[in-house]
Amino acid sequence: MRITMEEAADKLMGAKSLLITAHVNPDGDAIGSTLGLAAFLQARGKKAEVWIDDKLPKNLAFLPGYDKIVRPQAGQKTDAEILVILDTSLDRIGVVGDAAKGLPVLNIDHHVSNDEKADYLYNARRAATAEMIFEIVDHLGGGFPPEIAIPLYTGLATDTGFFKFSNTRPETMHAAARLLEAGVRPELVSESLEEKPESVVRGQAAALQTMELSYGGRVAGLYLDKDLATSLDTTEGFIDFVRVIEGVEIAVLVKCMDENFCRVSVRSKGLDVSKVAMKFGGGGHIRAAGFSVKKPLAEAKKDVLEALGEVLK
Amino acid sequence: MRITMEEAADKLMGAKSLLITAHVNPDGDAIGSTLGLAAFLQARGKKAEVWIDDKLPKNLAFLPGYDKIVRPQAGQKTDAEILVILDTSLDRIGVVGDAAKGLPVLNIDHHVSNDEKADYLYNARRAATAEMIFEIVDHLGGGFPPEIAIPLYTGLATDTGFFKFSNTRPETMHAAARLLEAGVRPELVSESLEEKPESVVRGQAAALQTMELSYGGRVAGLYLDKDLATSLDTTEGFIDFVRVIEGVEIAVLVKCMDENFCRVSVRSKGLDVSKVAMKFGGGGHIRAAGFSVKKPLAEAKKDVLEALGEVLK
Repeated sequence: MRITMEEAADKLMGAKSLLITAHVNPDGDAIGSTLGLAAFLQARGKKAEVWIDDKLPKNLAFLPGYDKIVRPQAGQKTDAEILVILDTSLDRIGVVGDAAKGLPVLNIDHHVSNDEKADYLYNARRAATAEMIFEIVDHLGGGFPPEIAIPLYTGLATDTGFFKFSNTRPETMHAAARLLEAGVRPELVSESLEEKPESVVRGQAAALQTMELSYGGRVAGLYLDKDLATSLDTTEGFIDFVRVIEGVEIAVLVKCMDENFCRVSVRSKGLDVSKVAMKFGGGGHIRAAGFSVKKPLAEAKKDVLEALGEVLK
Repeated sequence: MRITMEEAADKLMGAKSLLITAHVNPDGDAIGSTLGLAAFLQARGKKAEVWIDDKLPKNLAFLPGYDKIVRPQAGQKTDAEILVILDTSLDRIGVVGDAAKGLPVLNIDHHVSNDEKADYLYNARRAATAEMIFEIVDHLGGGFPPEIAIPLYTGLATDTGFFKFSNTRPETMHAAARLLEAGVRPELVSESLEEKPESVVRGQAAALQTMELSYGGRVAGLYLDKDLATSLDTTEGFIDFVRVIEGVEIAVLVKCMDENFCRVSVRSKGLDVSKVAMKFGGGGHIRAAGFSVKKPLAEAKKDVLEALGEVLK
């Protein structure tokens, strides 16, 4: 059942003991919105625990409350009255679903892809779930002490790419401004969010060595062979290093995980690359798409560049 | 003579024809604040020209009014009534000073280092000069059409590192929010601001190959020999690639421009590196300092690491 922000606030205020969770593989918005909400409810004299069924990213350890997040065991049960799911639907909370079996579920999530299976769903077009929690706390007149402000600001900053993405609304920035008024220091949050293991930076350096420009500089690519691709923990964000080159309209990352299996990511600054992904049996949006090619690196690269050439026409 | 924001607004409104300039080597705030102010004055029926004595960065070409910026010739004269200098003092405007010789000078600048030589100086602690222009336009009830809003937003975003730096005040973000309300699209501004020539990205890749960690990962360095250092157009931002590594407390960039001359930049996450700079005859702040060492790369590196070791103790 879809409910309004005011109704969601009433549900939260109506419970004495709440279990709060978010999606597995949690990011700054998942953890920021759960910690911000938990701190607010605790300040109102409620029992509010955060359980997340996954490892937590180390670069969020600066968040107040991070150390109190519980990673539940299989079979572990909660004695809370209500389960509050943030930033995802029921299907991505791991064993927390079993731990709270039978409890009413309040779901607060900004994703349009929400499965709408919760008993009570507050879903709205916001940049981050943290923005929805900000509005609830503000509506309830909670004020923003650091243990609420820092996590909520981190959620906003994460999901908007530090206020750069197109989902950044004026209201998002006004909310961030009010959290700065409450004492959040943006340079400390950004310093923590930007932290990376040494191995990732070395991986970036190695990947950048493979950079090639095609079509007179309109396409920039990184082409990782099996040795390099399988040695990397992550390639997240690598494509952005070549996407920013002047004159580049399409950036592409090809990484071959096996002799005959290459994963391909494509980003454009406006041209429709979803067509290319569909041609190879993948999917995505106009400006960001992904697919795989069951060929060795050299052949996969040739096929991909040929297809991108069609988009440039 | 120091004046207030209201007095600066009166000075602007009192003139019919204004010449606006900013510092040589202009950045997003220099160009953003001049273009925003010029567009506002033109909307009020005034003649307002922007002259800047330098090449303009290509990645700012998306700004409305960019094409109308004049690069004056030596000896060229203006027929304006007043010279308005933004984002710098009198000493960094190149030949525009001669072009406007004898005119009254109104200086609007957020830098604490302003030389206070202008006839009228409005100087205040703001994140960007664009924030001061925002306040003036707002005070005069100008509204923010795109040709004013986009340049001012770009100035704010440039000088705050997209709202990440410690100079970002709540008011700065409220101002940015109001510019988004006026229709600025942050994803388009950031995409333009982030653009780099291919050569710079290739330079980053080459520089990253020299990465070394010292003191158990507490210091991360890039060490560029003469061949590499002199082949690069810029090393701006390179140090940030290693500064973000987990566990790194000090990042250092050593670039040797000649056999016996190395430039050194140091960044810390809190430790006082200005002491190291002073030891080598340089200067800076607690978290950012620079100096030079008149030795070959290997020796300069050894000396610098030794000095940084003292800071780590």
